[in-house]
Amino acid sequence: MPVLRYDVVTQDWVIFAPERGRRPRDLTVGQTAQSSAQACPFCPGHEEDNPPESLRVPAQSDQPWTVRIIPNKYPVLENSTVPFHRGSGLFPESGGRGVHEVVIESPDHETFLADQPQKQVEALLWAMRERSRAMATDARLRSILIFKNHGEGAGTSMRHPHWQMVATPVVPRMHRMRHAIAQEHFDRTDRCLYCDLLEEETAVGTRMVAENAGFAAMAPFASHMAFQIRILPKRHASSFLNAWDADLPDLARILIAVLRRLHAALDNPPFNLTLNSAPLGDEEKQYFLWHLDIIPRLSTPAGFEMGSGMAINTVMPEAAAEILRRASL
Amino acid sequence: MPVLRYDVVTQDWVIFAPERGRRPRDLTVGQTAQSSAQACPFCPGHEEDNPPESLRVPAQSDQPWTVRIIPNKYPVLENSTVPFHRGSGLFPESGGRGVHEVVIESPDHETFLADQPQKQVEALLWAMRERSRAMATDARLRSILIFKNHGEGAGTSMRHPHWQMVATPVVPRMHRMRHAIAQEHFDRTDRCLYCDLLEEETAVGTRMVAENAGFAAMAPFASHMAFQIRILPKRHASSFLNAWDADLPDLARILIAVLRRLHAALDNPPFNLTLNSAPLGDEEKQYFLWHLDIIPRLSTPAGFEMGSGMAINTVMPEAAAEILRRASL
Repeated sequence: MPVLRYDVVTQDWVIFAPERGRRPRDLTVGQTAQSSAQACPFCPGHEEDNPPESLRVPAQSDQPWTVRIIPNKYPVLENSTVPFHRGSGLFPESGGRGVHEVVIESPDHETFLADQPQKQVEALLWAMRERSRAMATDARLRSILIFKNHGEGAGTSMRHPHWQMVATPVVPRMHRMRHAIAQEHFDRTDRCLYCDLLEEETAVGTRMVAENAGFAAMAPFASHMAFQIRILPKRHASSFLNAWDADLPDLARILIAVLRRLHAALDNPPFNLTLNSAPLGDEEKQYFLWHLDIIPRLSTPAGFEMGSGMAINTVMPEAAAEILRRASL
Repeated sequence: MPVLRYDVVTQDWVIFAPERGRRPRDLTVGQTAQSSAQACPFCPGHEEDNPPESLRVPAQSDQPWTVRIIPNKYPVLENSTVPFHRGSGLFPESGGRGVHEVVIESPDHETFLADQPQKQVEALLWAMRERSRAMATDARLRSILIFKNHGEGAGTSMRHPHWQMVATPVVPRMHRMRHAIAQEHFDRTDRCLYCDLLEEETAVGTRMVAENAGFAAMAPFASHMAFQIRILPKRHASSFLNAWDADLPDLARILIAVLRRLHAALDNPPFNLTLNSAPLGDEEKQYFLWHLDIIPRLSTPAGFEMGSGMAINTVMPEAAAEILRRASL
C-alpha cells in the first residue's frame, strides 16, 4: 500500500508508491499501431483484464461502449480502511488512502482528444463529473484532481488516450495556498479573482485564444510555461462538480478547438491537462473558479526552476496567443 | 531585456526571457568528444569568445586557469539601471533585472564533477562563495541561487561541466514559504529546523548516505524525488556566504563521495544540484541552514504533480540510501 509522508520543511505531503515503479510502459518498446492495439488493456475486448469498472457510458453508436472509468492497476493511492493519522514530530507518516482511476477516453486506440467528435468529448466530461460526484460522497476524501498526460514527453506510460482521476485524503498544500490567495482577494473586493482575471483578459484581448458562449481560453498574463492555455467558465462555480449539463457542450467545443490549434501550431506537442476545483465540501464557496490548464511540455525545467520555484518562460503569452489564433486548421 | 511578471493567482514572479529561446544547444547535434571540445566556448583558448570574466581562480598546475566565472551570454536576468517597479492591479510587471553567470568548473571538457580532484572542487566552491559575496554588495539584489544541471535529461544545454549563479531582484516565493516554516519552528522551539532534522536523521541512521567531520548527506525522510540527496553542514549558518574556508575541504570531499556513489549506483544519471541559502541580508539569522540538494531526474513529473504540487516517489528513501551506501566505487 502507498505511504504518505509529510515534509516538515515544505509542509507538503509526498506520496510514496514503490509498487508503481513496476508498472509496464507500452511506449518504451518499438511498436506498430496494430500490435500495440492488440496488447492494449484499454481497448475493447480487454475489459476483463482490468478491475471492475466504476462507471460506463453505454454505446451511442456501433462501438461496444462510449467511455469507461476503471481503477488504476498501479495506484498512487488506494481505497483502504486504514485510519488516517498524521503522527507527530519531524517524521509524520500515514497510509496512502485514496482513489486512483483511469478514464478511457473512447474505445479508439489511435484518435487524439483533439480529433474526437464533440459528442464523445461531452460524454467524457459528463462521465468525469458524475464519477467526481460519486467520489465526493466518501467523507474521508478531501480533494479530486482530474488530469490528462498526452505524449511520452508529458509522462504518459500508456498510448491509448485516457485521463486520470486521483482523490486525495488531504488537500494539496499548493491548492490551499492558491485558495488562500483567492480568498484574500474575495475578502478584499467581494469578487472572485479568476472572474476578475477573465474580465480583464477579455478587455485586453491580446492573450485570448478562443471563446464561446460558456467559456474563454487564454494564454495567461504570467504563464509559467510557454504556450500554457487556461480555459475558464464564464458562469461562476468553484468546482467542476457543480458544472451543469448545459455547460458541457460548450466546454467540449472549446477544448477541442484549443487542442486543434495547439496541435496545428506546434506539431502535436506533448502536454499535461489539469482540471482544478475547490476542495471537496467547498463547492458552494464563492472565492474560486474551476478551470482547465493545458501545459505543453516544450522545455525541461532545470536547477534554477527546481531550486527557486520560479518559472522561466521563453515565449511571451501575447506571442503564443497570436500563433494559436492564426494556426491553420 | 527579460521581463518579470507577477502571477496574482500563485503570487509567484515569472521570468520571461524570449532571447533565451535562441541559445545554441551543443548537445543536440551528433558529436564526438574532439569536435565538441574544439567548438566549446568554455574550453581554454576560447576565453575571448565570452564576455569579460567576473572571477578567475589562477592556475594551480600546468593548466591555464583553475576556475572561471563569466556572464551568461543568454541571461534570464540582466544587470540594468531600470528601476524595479511592481506596478499594480492584476498585471504587475517589471524589468528583469539581476545577474546570471556561468561557473566553468574546470578547464577540462570531459571530466565530471565526481571525478575531479578534491583541490579542484575546493577551488570551485571557494570561487562561488567569493562571487556570491561580491554579488551581495549590490543592494538591489535579494537572493542568489547556485545550481548545476548534469546531463541533457536535467536540462543542460552545454556539455562542458559548469554551474550557474542567478541573483534575483525578488526573493522567490518558494523560498519565502520555506523560510516562514523554518522561522515558525524557530519561534516555537528556539532551534533551527534543519539542525533538528540533521540530528534526528543521524539518530535514525537508515537514511544516511555519507558523513565527515563537517557535513552529512542523507536521503530525506520525505524526499520529493527518487534518490534525492541532501547535504547539510554540521555547523549552523543560514547562508553559504558565511561558509568558512575551513568548511570547504569537507564539503568538497562529501560532494565528490556522494556523486561517485550516485554515478556508480545509477549509471551516471542526469541530476540537478541546488545550493540553498537564506535571502541576502539574512546571513546572520538563526532559523535557516544552508544546504545542497542533489535531485536525480529519473522520472517525468506529469499531470498529477503539476496540478496538485504533490510529488510521487517510487523509491523509499531508506532503500535509496542503502543502495547508495552499498554502491561499489
